[in-house]
Amino acid sequence: MLIREATADDWPAIWPFLHEIVAAGETYSWDRDTTEERAHALWFKPAPGRVFVAVDPDGTVLGTAESHPNQSGGGSHVANAGFMVDPRHSGRGVARALCAHVLDQARADGYRAMQFNAVVETNHRAVALWQTFGFEVLTTVPEAFHHPDKGYVGLHVMYRKL
Amino acid sequence: MLIREATADDWPAIWPFLHEIVAAGETYSWDRDTTEERAHALWFKPAPGRVFVAVDPDGTVLGTAESHPNQSGGGSHVANAGFMVDPRHSGRGVARALCAHVLDQARADGYRAMQFNAVVETNHRAVALWQTFGFEVLTTVPEAFHHPDKGYVGLHVMYRKL
Repeated sequence: MLIREATADDWPAIWPFLHEIVAAGETYSWDRDTTEERAHALWFKPAPGRVFVAVDPDGTVLGTAESHPNQSGGGSHVANAGFMVDPRHSGRGVARALCAHVLDQARADGYRAMQFNAVVETNHRAVALWQTFGFEVLTTVPEAFHHPDKGYVGLHVMYRKL
Repeated sequence: MLIREATADDWPAIWPFLHEIVAAGETYSWDRDTTEERAHALWFKPAPGRVFVAVDPDGTVLGTAESHPNQSGGGSHVANAGFMVDPRHSGRGVARALCAHVLDQARADGYRAMQFNAVVETNHRAVALWQTFGFEVLTTVPEAFHHPDKGYVGLHVMYRKL
Protein backbone atom coordinates (compact mmCIF):
# COMPACT_ATOMS: atom_id res chain seq x y z
CA MET A 1 0.00 0.00 0.00
CA LEU A 2 1.29 3.44 -0.95
CA ILE A 3 0.23 6.71 0.66
CA ARG A 4 0.59 9.74 -1.58
CA GLU A 5 -0.86 13.23 -2.01
CA ALA A 6 -4.19 13.12 -3.81
CA THR A 7 -4.68 14.90 -7.12
CA ALA A 8 -7.85 16.15 -8.76
CA ASP A 9 -7.81 12.94 -10.81
CA ASP A 10 -8.38 10.87 -7.65
CA TRP A 11 -11.77 12.38 -6.86
CA PRO A 12 -13.83 10.02 -9.08
CA ALA A 13 -12.34 7.09 -7.12
CA ILE A 14 -12.89 8.78 -3.74
CA TRP A 15 -16.45 10.01 -4.16
CA PRO A 16 -18.28 6.63 -4.30
CA PHE A 17 -17.05 5.38 -0.91
CA LEU A 18 -16.95 8.84 0.67
CA HIS A 19 -20.57 9.26 -0.40
CA GLU A 20 -21.47 5.86 1.03
CA ILE A 21 -19.89 6.72 4.39
CA VAL A 22 -21.51 10.17 4.56
CA ALA A 23 -24.92 8.87 3.47
CA ALA A 24 -24.83 6.21 6.20
CA GLY A 25 -24.69 9.05 8.75
CA GLU A 26 -23.05 6.95 11.43
CA THR A 27 -19.57 8.41 11.72
CA TYR A 28 -19.45 11.88 10.15
CA SER A 29 -21.47 14.92 11.17
CA TRP A 30 -22.06 15.92 7.57
CA ASP A 31 -25.47 16.20 5.96
CA ARG A 32 -26.30 12.71 4.74
CA ASP A 33 -27.38 14.10 1.38
CA THR A 34 -24.23 16.20 0.87
CA THR A 35 -23.82 16.79 -2.86
CA GLU A 36 -20.73 15.71 -4.74
CA GLU A 37 -19.74 19.35 -5.31
CA ARG A 38 -20.08 20.21 -1.63
CA ALA A 39 -18.27 17.04 -0.56
CA HIS A 40 -15.38 17.89 -2.86
CA ALA A 41 -15.12 21.35 -1.30
CA LEU A 42 -15.25 19.92 2.22
CA TRP A 43 -12.59 17.30 1.55
CA PHE A 44 -10.22 19.27 -0.71
CA LYS A 45 -9.74 22.32 1.50
CA PRO A 46 -7.51 25.16 0.32
CA ALA A 47 -3.82 25.18 1.30
CA PRO A 48 -2.39 24.52 3.85
CA GLY A 49 -5.03 21.76 3.69
CA ARG A 50 -3.71 18.48 2.29
CA VAL A 51 -5.43 15.40 0.92
CA PHE A 52 -3.89 11.94 0.74
CA VAL A 53 -4.91 8.64 -0.76
CA ALA A 54 -3.90 5.12 0.10
CA VAL A 55 -3.52 3.06 -3.07
CA ASP A 56 -2.69 -0.57 -3.65
CA PRO A 57 -0.09 -1.69 -6.20
CA ASP A 58 -2.61 -1.74 -9.07
CA GLY A 59 -3.58 1.85 -8.31
CA THR A 60 -6.92 1.16 -6.62
CA VAL A 61 -7.79 3.88 -4.10
CA LEU A 62 -8.39 2.16 -0.75
CA GLY A 63 -8.97 5.21 1.40
CA THR A 64 -8.31 8.90 1.82
CA ALA A 65 -7.35 11.38 4.50
CA GLU A 66 -7.30 15.15 4.72
CA SER A 67 -5.65 17.52 7.13
CA HIS A 68 -6.03 21.25 7.74
CA PRO A 69 -5.61 23.78 10.55
CA ASN A 70 -8.29 23.18 13.18
CA GLN A 71 -8.69 26.93 13.68
CA SER A 72 -7.37 29.99 11.87
CA GLY A 73 -5.16 32.75 13.21
CA GLY A 74 -3.92 32.08 16.73
CA GLY A 75 -5.21 28.50 16.54
CA SER A 76 -3.58 27.50 13.27
CA HIS A 77 -0.73 25.54 14.86
CA VAL A 78 -3.15 22.73 15.78
CA ALA A 79 -4.07 20.40 12.92
CA ASN A 80 -7.32 18.57 12.34
CA ALA A 81 -7.70 15.54 10.10
CA GLY A 82 -10.37 13.31 8.60
CA PHE A 83 -10.19 9.74 7.34
CA MET A 84 -12.41 7.71 5.04
CA VAL A 85 -11.66 4.11 4.12
CA ASP A 86 -13.56 2.26 1.41
CA PRO A 87 -15.63 -0.33 3.33
CA ARG A 88 -14.68 -2.88 0.66
CA HIS A 89 -11.07 -2.56 1.83
CA SER A 90 -11.52 -2.38 5.58
CA GLY A 91 -9.44 -4.58 7.86
CA ARG A 92 -6.28 -4.08 5.80
CA GLY A 93 -4.73 -1.38 7.96
CA VAL A 94 -5.61 1.45 5.58
CA ALA A 95 -6.73 3.85 8.30
CA ARG A 96 -3.66 3.05 10.35
CA ALA A 97 -1.33 3.71 7.42
CA LEU A 98 -3.14 6.96 6.58
CA CYS A 99 -3.03 8.13 10.19
CA ALA A 100 0.70 7.44 10.52
CA HIS A 101 1.34 9.40 7.33
CA VAL A 102 -0.88 12.33 8.29
CA LEU A 103 0.81 12.61 11.68
CA ASP A 104 4.29 12.58 10.10
CA GLN A 105 3.30 15.18 7.52
CA ALA A 106 1.64 17.40 10.13
CA ARG A 107 4.79 17.29 12.24
CA ALA A 108 6.89 18.12 9.19
CA ASP A 109 4.54 21.01 8.40
CA GLY A 110 5.20 22.49 11.83
CA TYR A 111 1.92 21.79 13.56
CA ARG A 112 2.32 21.38 17.33
CA ALA A 113 -0.69 19.14 17.98
CA MET A 114 -3.61 17.40 16.31
CA GLN A 115 -7.22 17.61 17.44
CA PHE A 116 -10.38 15.82 16.33
CA ASN A 117 -13.49 17.79 17.30
CA ALA A 118 -16.26 15.32 16.72
CA VAL A 119 -15.43 11.61 16.92
CA VAL A 120 -18.69 9.68 17.27
CA GLU A 121 -18.29 7.67 20.46
CA THR A 122 -19.93 4.60 18.94
CA ASN A 123 -17.25 4.52 16.22
CA HIS A 124 -15.29 2.20 18.47
CA ARG A 125 -12.78 1.05 15.86
CA ALA A 126 -11.76 4.58 15.02
CA VAL A 127 -11.56 5.64 18.67
CA ALA A 128 -9.40 2.63 19.52
CA LEU A 129 -7.15 3.24 16.53
CA TRP A 130 -6.57 6.91 17.39
CA GLN A 131 -5.80 5.86 20.95
CA THR A 132 -3.06 3.50 19.73
CA PHE A 133 -1.58 6.59 18.05
CA GLY A 134 -1.52 8.44 21.36
CA PHE A 135 -4.71 10.46 21.04
CA GLU A 136 -6.62 10.95 24.25
CA VAL A 137 -10.28 11.76 24.73
CA LEU A 138 -10.22 15.23 26.31
CA THR A 139 -13.98 15.30 26.75
CA THR A 140 -17.14 13.78 25.34
CA VAL A 141 -19.82 16.29 24.43
CA PRO A 142 -22.99 14.59 25.64
CA GLU A 143 -25.68 13.62 23.12
CA ALA A 144 -24.05 15.81 20.51
CA PHE A 145 -24.59 13.37 17.63
CA HIS A 146 -27.84 11.81 16.47
CA HIS A 147 -26.96 8.32 15.28
CA PRO A 148 -29.49 6.82 12.85
CA ASP A 149 -29.78 3.60 14.91
CA LYS A 150 -28.44 4.41 18.35
CA GLY A 151 -30.10 7.78 18.91
CA TYR A 152 -28.23 10.56 20.70
CA VAL A 153 -24.63 9.62 21.44
CA GLY A 154 -21.59 11.62 22.49
CA LEU A 155 -18.90 13.25 20.39
CA HIS A 156 -15.35 12.85 21.62
CA VAL A 157 -12.83 15.67 21.42
CA MET A 158 -9.55 13.81 20.85
CA TYR A 159 -6.07 15.29 21.00
CA ARG A 160 -2.39 14.56 20.90
CA LYS A 161 0.76 16.63 20.81
CA LEU A 162 3.05 16.19 17.83
CA MET B 1 -30.98 48.45 24.31
CA LEU B 2 -32.79 46.49 21.64
CA ILE B 3 -31.69 43.13 20.25
CA ARG B 4 -32.92 42.42 16.74
CA GLU B 5 -32.00 40.32 13.69
CA ALA B 6 -29.27 42.00 11.69
CA THR B 7 -29.82 43.01 8.09
CA ALA B 8 -27.34 43.56 5.29
CA ASP B 9 -27.58 47.28 6.10
CA ASP B 10 -26.00 46.68 9.52
CA TRP B 11 -22.69 45.40 8.16
CA PRO B 12 -21.05 48.83 7.72
CA ALA B 13 -21.67 49.47 11.43
CA ILE B 14 -20.46 46.01 12.45
CA TRP B 15 -17.26 45.77 10.40
CA PRO B 16 -15.19 48.50 12.16
CA PHE B 17 -15.36 46.98 15.64
CA LEU B 18 -15.40 43.38 14.39
CA HIS B 19 -12.26 44.20 12.44
CA GLU B 20 -10.67 45.77 15.50
CA ILE B 21 -11.40 42.69 17.62
CA VAL B 22 -10.15 40.26 14.98
CA ALA B 23 -7.03 42.30 14.23
CA ALA B 24 -6.14 42.35 17.95
CA GLY B 25 -5.91 38.54 17.78
CA GLU B 26 -6.58 38.07 21.48
CA THR B 27 -10.00 36.45 21.58
CA TYR B 28 -10.87 34.99 18.16
CA SER B 29 -8.99 32.30 16.27
CA TRP B 30 -9.45 34.10 12.98
CA ASP B 31 -6.62 35.33 10.79
CA ARG B 32 -5.79 38.78 12.13
CA ASP B 33 -5.75 40.19 8.60
CA THR B 34 -9.12 38.69 7.65
CA THR B 35 -10.53 40.76 4.79
CA GLU B 36 -13.88 42.50 5.03
CA GLU B 37 -15.35 40.15 2.41
CA ARG B 38 -14.17 37.04 4.26
CA ALA B 39 -15.30 38.43 7.62
CA HIS B 40 -18.77 39.07 6.22
CA ALA B 41 -18.97 35.48 4.98
CA LEU B 42 -17.77 34.13 8.34
CA TRP B 43 -20.25 36.20 10.34
CA PHE B 44 -23.31 36.05 8.07
CA LYS B 45 -23.51 32.29 7.64
CA PRO B 46 -26.24 30.80 5.47
CA ALA B 47 -29.54 29.73 7.08
CA PRO B 48 -30.18 28.34 9.62
CA GLY B 49 -27.43 30.71 10.72
CA ARG B 50 -28.71 33.90 12.33
CA VAL B 51 -27.09 37.25 13.06
CA PHE B 52 -28.26 39.72 15.68
CA VAL B 53 -27.32 43.24 16.63
CA ALA B 54 -27.72 45.11 19.89
CA VAL B 55 -28.68 48.72 19.21
CA ASP B 56 -29.25 51.64 21.51
CA PRO B 57 -32.29 53.93 21.17
CA ASP B 58 -30.59 56.18 18.62
CA GLY B 59 -29.84 53.17 16.42
CA THR B 60 -26.13 52.87 17.20
CA VAL B 61 -24.93 49.28 16.86
CA LEU B 62 -23.30 48.29 20.17
CA GLY B 63 -22.52 44.68 19.42
CA THR B 64 -23.43 41.66 17.36
CA ALA B 65 -23.91 37.93 17.75
CA GLU B 66 -24.29 35.06 15.35
CA SER B 67 -25.50 31.51 15.81
CA HIS B 68 -25.36 28.44 13.59
CA PRO B 69 -25.30 24.64 13.91
CA ASN B 70 -21.99 23.56 15.44
CA GLN B 71 -21.86 20.55 13.12
CA SER B 72 -23.92 19.44 10.14
CA GLY B 73 -26.00 16.29 9.74
CA GLY B 74 -26.20 14.25 12.93
CA GLY B 75 -24.63 17.10 14.90
CA SER B 76 -26.94 19.89 13.77
CA HIS B 77 -29.06 19.93 16.94
CA VAL B 78 -26.20 21.60 18.84
CA ALA B 79 -25.80 25.32 18.24
CA ASN B 80 -22.66 27.38 18.24
CA ALA B 81 -22.56 31.15 18.68
CA GLY B 82 -20.15 34.06 18.47
CA PHE B 83 -20.28 37.49 20.09
CA MET B 84 -18.52 40.76 19.33
CA VAL B 85 -19.11 43.93 21.34
CA ASP B 86 -17.80 47.31 20.25
CA PRO B 87 -15.05 48.09 22.81
CA ARG B 88 -16.39 51.66 22.95
CA HIS B 89 -19.60 50.26 24.45
CA SER B 90 -18.21 47.63 26.79
CA GLY B 91 -19.38 47.45 30.40
CA ARG B 92 -23.00 48.15 29.46
CA GLY B 93 -24.23 44.56 29.50
CA VAL B 94 -24.28 44.23 25.72
CA ALA B 95 -22.76 40.74 25.65
CA ARG B 96 -25.08 39.62 28.41
CA ALA B 97 -28.15 40.87 26.53
CA LEU B 98 -26.97 39.28 23.29
CA CYS B 99 -26.26 35.96 24.98
CA ALA B 100 -29.68 35.85 26.64
CA HIS B 101 -31.33 36.55 23.29
CA VAL B 102 -29.25 34.00 21.38
CA LEU B 103 -30.03 31.30 23.95
CA ASP B 104 -33.77 32.03 23.78
CA GLN B 105 -33.75 32.00 20.00
CA ALA B 106 -31.71 28.79 19.84
CA ARG B 107 -34.17 27.11 22.18
CA ALA B 108 -37.08 28.36 20.04
CA ASP B 109 -35.33 27.05 16.94
CA GLY B 110 -35.23 23.57 18.45
CA TYR B 111 -31.55 23.25 19.27
CA ARG B 112 -30.92 20.94 22.23
CA ALA B 113 -27.63 22.43 23.43
CA MET B 114 -25.08 25.14 22.72
CA GLN B 115 -21.34 24.60 22.42
CA PHE B 116 -18.40 26.97 22.06
CA ASN B 117 -15.37 25.21 20.59
CA ALA B 118 -12.60 27.69 21.16
CA VAL B 119 -12.97 30.16 24.03
CA VAL B 120 -9.55 31.67 24.74
CA GLU B 121 -8.89 30.91 28.40
CA THR B 122 -7.39 34.34 29.04
CA ASN B 123 -10.66 35.97 27.90
CA HIS B 124 -11.73 35.91 31.53
CA ARG B 125 -14.69 38.26 31.18
CA ALA B 126 -16.27 36.17 28.46
CA VAL B 127 -15.61 32.89 30.28
CA ALA B 128 -17.15 34.28 33.48
CA LEU B 129 -20.15 35.62 31.59
CA TRP B 130 -20.88 32.32 29.83
CA GLN B 131 -20.57 30.59 33.19
CA THR B 132 -23.27 32.84 34.66
CA PHE B 133 -25.46 31.59 31.81
CA GLY B 134 -24.85 27.99 32.82
CA PHE B 135 -22.08 27.08 30.41
CA GLU B 136 -19.46 24.73 31.79
CA VAL B 137 -15.91 24.20 30.63
CA LEU B 138 -15.92 20.60 29.35
CA THR B 139 -12.20 20.65 28.64
CA THR B 140 -9.38 23.03 27.89
CA VAL B 141 -7.29 22.12 24.86
CA PRO B 142 -3.75 22.86 26.05
CA GLU B 143 -1.72 25.55 24.29
CA ALA B 144 -4.19 25.58 21.40
CA PHE B 145 -4.15 29.37 20.97
CA HIS B 146 -1.18 31.62 20.39
CA HIS B 147 -1.97 34.87 22.16
CA PRO B 148 -0.01 37.88 20.87
CA ASP B 149 1.12 38.86 24.40
CA LYS B 150 0.65 35.78 26.56
CA GLY B 151 2.04 33.11 24.23
CA TYR B 152 0.43 29.68 24.05
CA VAL B 153 -2.74 29.50 26.12
CA GLY B 154 -5.60 27.01 26.25
CA LEU B 155 -8.90 26.97 24.40
CA HIS B 156 -11.97 26.04 26.42
CA VAL B 157 -14.72 23.88 25.02
CA MET B 158 -17.82 25.27 26.76
CA TYR B 159 -21.28 23.73 26.74
CA ARG B 160 -24.77 23.96 28.13
CA LYS B 161 -28.03 22.18 27.45
CA LEU B 162 -30.95 24.29 26.30
